[in-house]
Amino acid sequence: MEPTRLIAELKQIVGVTGVVTDPDALMTYDADGCVMDTHAPHVVVLPTSTEQVSAIVRLAAQHDVPVVPRGAGTGLSGGATPMHGGIIIGTSRMSQILELDLPNGRVLVQPGVINWELTQYLTLSGYHFAPDPSSQKACTIGGNIANNSGGPHCLKYGVTTNHVLGVEMVLADGSVIWTGDGTPDCAGYDLTGVINGSEGTFGIVTATWLRLTRLPEAIRVVLALYPTIAGATSTVSQVIARGLLPAALEIMDRLAIKAVNTMYRLGMPDEAGALLIVEVDGVTDGLDELLNDIVAICWSNGALDVRPARTPAEQVRVWSARKNAFGAMGRLAPTYHLVDTVVPRTRLPKMMEEVAQIAQELNLPVANVFHAGDGNLHPIILFDRRDPDQNERALQAVNRMMLISIEQGGVISGEHGIGVEKQEFMPYLFNQDDLAAMAALHQGFDPEGRFNPGKIFPKTQNARDLAEQRHSMAFADRDVA
Amino acid sequence: MEPTRLIAELKQIVGVTGVVTDPDALMTYDADGCVMDTHAPHVVVLPTSTEQVSAIVRLAAQHDVPVVPRGAGTGLSGGATPMHGGIIIGTSRMSQILELDLPNGRVLVQPGVINWELTQYLTLSGYHFAPDPSSQKACTIGGNIANNSGGPHCLKYGVTTNHVLGVEMVLADGSVIWTGDGTPDCAGYDLTGVINGSEGTFGIVTATWLRLTRLPEAIRVVLALYPTIAGATSTVSQVIARGLLPAALEIMDRLAIKAVNTMYRLGMPDEAGALLIVEVDGVTDGLDELLNDIVAICWSNGALDVRPARTPAEQVRVWSARKNAFGAMGRLAPTYHLVDTVVPRTRLPKMMEEVAQIAQELNLPVANVFHAGDGNLHPIILFDRRDPDQNERALQAVNRMMLISIEQGGVISGEHGIGVEKQEFMPYLFNQDDLAAMAALHQGFDPEGRFNPGKIFPKTQNARDLAEQRHSMAFADRDVA
Repeated sequence: MEPTRLIAELKQIVGVTGVVTDPDALMTYDADGCVMDTHAPHVVVLPTSTEQVSAIVRLAAQHDVPVVPRGAGTGLSGGATPMHGGIIIGTSRMSQILELDLPNGRVLVQPGVINWELTQYLTLSGYHFAPDPSSQKACTIGGNIANNSGGPHCLKYGVTTNHVLGVEMVLADGSVIWTGDGTPDCAGYDLTGVINGSEGTFGIVTATWLRLTRLPEAIRVVLALYPTIAGATSTVSQVIARGLLPAALEIMDRLAIKAVNTMYRLGMPDEAGALLIVEVDGVTDGLDELLNDIVAICWSNGALDVRPARTPAEQVRVWSARKNAFGAMGRLAPTYHLVDTVVPRTRLPKMMEEVAQIAQELNLPVANVFHAGDGNLHPIILFDRRDPDQNERALQAVNRMMLISIEQGGVISGEHGIGVEKQEFMPYLFNQDDLAAMAALHQGFDPEGRFNPGKIFPKTQNARDLAEQRHSMAFADRDVA
Repeated sequence: MEPTRLIAELKQIVGVTGVVTDPDALMTYDADGCVMDTHAPHVVVLPTSTEQVSAIVRLAAQHDVPVVPRGAGTGLSGGATPMHGGIIIGTSRMSQILELDLPNGRVLVQPGVINWELTQYLTLSGYHFAPDPSSQKACTIGGNIANNSGGPHCLKYGVTTNHVLGVEMVLADGSVIWTGDGTPDCAGYDLTGVINGSEGTFGIVTATWLRLTRLPEAIRVVLALYPTIAGATSTVSQVIARGLLPAALEIMDRLAIKAVNTMYRLGMPDEAGALLIVEVDGVTDGLDELLNDIVAICWSNGALDVRPARTPAEQVRVWSARKNAFGAMGRLAPTYHLVDTVVPRTRLPKMMEEVAQIAQELNLPVANVFHAGDGNLHPIILFDRRDPDQNERALQAVNRMMLISIEQGGVISGEHGIGVEKQEFMPYLFNQDDLAAMAALHQGFDPEGRFNPGKIFPKTQNARDLAEQRHSMAFADRDVA
């Protein structure tokens, strides 16, 4: 790399104001929401068009420097951290809604469009973009695709991959592909699907056709408080056994309730050990009867208090406890680490016991907020990262929670991605053949490791080595024959 | 290949009765439901376990012969036809349901389990496997995964990929991978997703965790008859505009109605030019009101007759017209070719005009049965393949329908796959860079083209050439810089 020449050439592509080189400014790009490991990029570029992105990537190939795509930087697994420096392509200036096609329920957008802004834009049309991660007011569609983001409502509506009809992507050689033309079905291999959740390691998405979802005619929400988590989880089991598919099923534990209660004065009783939110939606007819059924199930499972919310205003209030939970954690400790794992739903009670046990043994407070409907846990480990001992114990807690999730038949990420946070846990979940298959897939897209290197695979086993190892195993086998 | 030695070794793996070598018997494996191009395999093997499949694939590598996976052979695009001979691995003896985990809504099965038998097995549990292709009484789960099969109810419930939680797959080197452990979320790249719809070209699925779907509490169906297709399609538009998401929205045209009416004496009036089936499901409360709403929409769009079906018996009768449509085509002509394309829903009326125009110009009767809710057309071209002239005109009709679908912003396959039937149309839908990206993905899984060679990519451009071409383009680009 010749930095001066590279920067001059980048300025030719995107203009002077589209290139960030000031060292202080670059520091703000040294990590995303996961600050375990920070690395500043050599330069940040802010293109406005697919053509500019393609030119930047060709330039990166000529100079042999890594390219790291970045949306809003709200990721929680280090996906946007430039582990080996290089060029960050920020999508903040690619935030146009290019075409709205309501009769076919779809919209064509650039990757820098903010999730919440898209939904706001669509409000009057009666449609929305269904994935609603907690960061939705800041995170971008490109980041949602990179991480295959979920959110409370993905229980009923599915995660990002279920709402992406096709993407335009710039590959490592600067070529531009379209993986579909915006019809619901694809022909040939499902490139769209495999790009979802690829964490910026295959290329950079420069436009996408998204599926729009009709806003439901009506919504009903119930908030129920219980003395213990057990009452909330047994309510969830009975709601599901009743054959209902709620739009959301969210649980918070005592510590999480305390945090939001203190911060927002929500008037929760002190004896509340668990909070459950059940949301159902659909046509108006019959929805109130459904609400009454759910209220009855809550009471029969020992609820202390049950608060049905019929109007939008009541519903906003009920949801505020959940939506502000992560923000309120700052009241409890200087730092928190948000864990993201998934277990089969029936293993949730066992997992909660294990998490409590880990918290006790390592002497760290752990709050819990989770998507109970699909077994997606979010233990929140509270600590002070300035204290090396607490820092070390927090890391230990994360490690143990990951391994126990795997032991319980689960996986190490529900919606936050692997990035750098969890790359060392991959070999516990996948054997060498599984990882080699993933690596071979990666090599198909990006054989030189141009895009976002140093992610997903364990540090000691990069994609190329893993893929080559598989290839040589295959040949060894042939020779033996 | 040394045929005698290969066959002896195969018998060692699966036993004598698991190896088919009789030439007459092999002829029945020379195609699937698409008989455009037939090729007999050298040998058919019927393993019972993953270990046996792995051993067969290793043997195939040693002898350097192709391996073609085959389920029930009901495919419609030639996916199971062994274009270059070799070994067919039939999954008919891998038909065990290995583990039922109802509390977590999932089941672990071998690939040879028949779609309908799985659903029958689950009836009393209150769950089902949602994808319901027309061939569901014969087709296998493995074939559903290979083709990412749909069906009338995929409008609401999604296609096969939405119901597969993870697969065990034997790769070209005989290694066995698991792409997930049966939890709803995956970690790392979405191998499960990209294997769905890969048409047996990546490896062979030997087991899979499937997502189970609760049977709805109640179902209501409406059958409406119209003088013309326009009345049916405008009803569909209004139902969707009303914000409803029916479980199914199916249309049949005059010729299709005539076929089932004659064969099953359903008593449809002669003046019926279109038949529409709308199915809604969910909780019982409010469902009858919804049914009344839909009935009113049907009448207001000029229906000749509207028949609501509230009881299961009535519903079976209503559905019988649709479910027997393809079977009844034999009454109209000695041969039919079932076309499968998708266009954005709003282009359906235009497409119907184009299809009628093609039928008229080529002087061939064409019946239409289609999944109106998601724009998936199924024109049925009726001809006599023994007549070379009719045969030629039928091929022309297929070609024109494909190209017009692409022109209308659609794709060339909704649910039947590319196989050999549509491989030459891929370059009309995808440019060279798009195809090269697919080819590179393929090379990641199966670099030597062991599995099901001669499919998906155009005959003159196999995956390896396409992938290499991309690679050399990238380097050429580098040199210029």
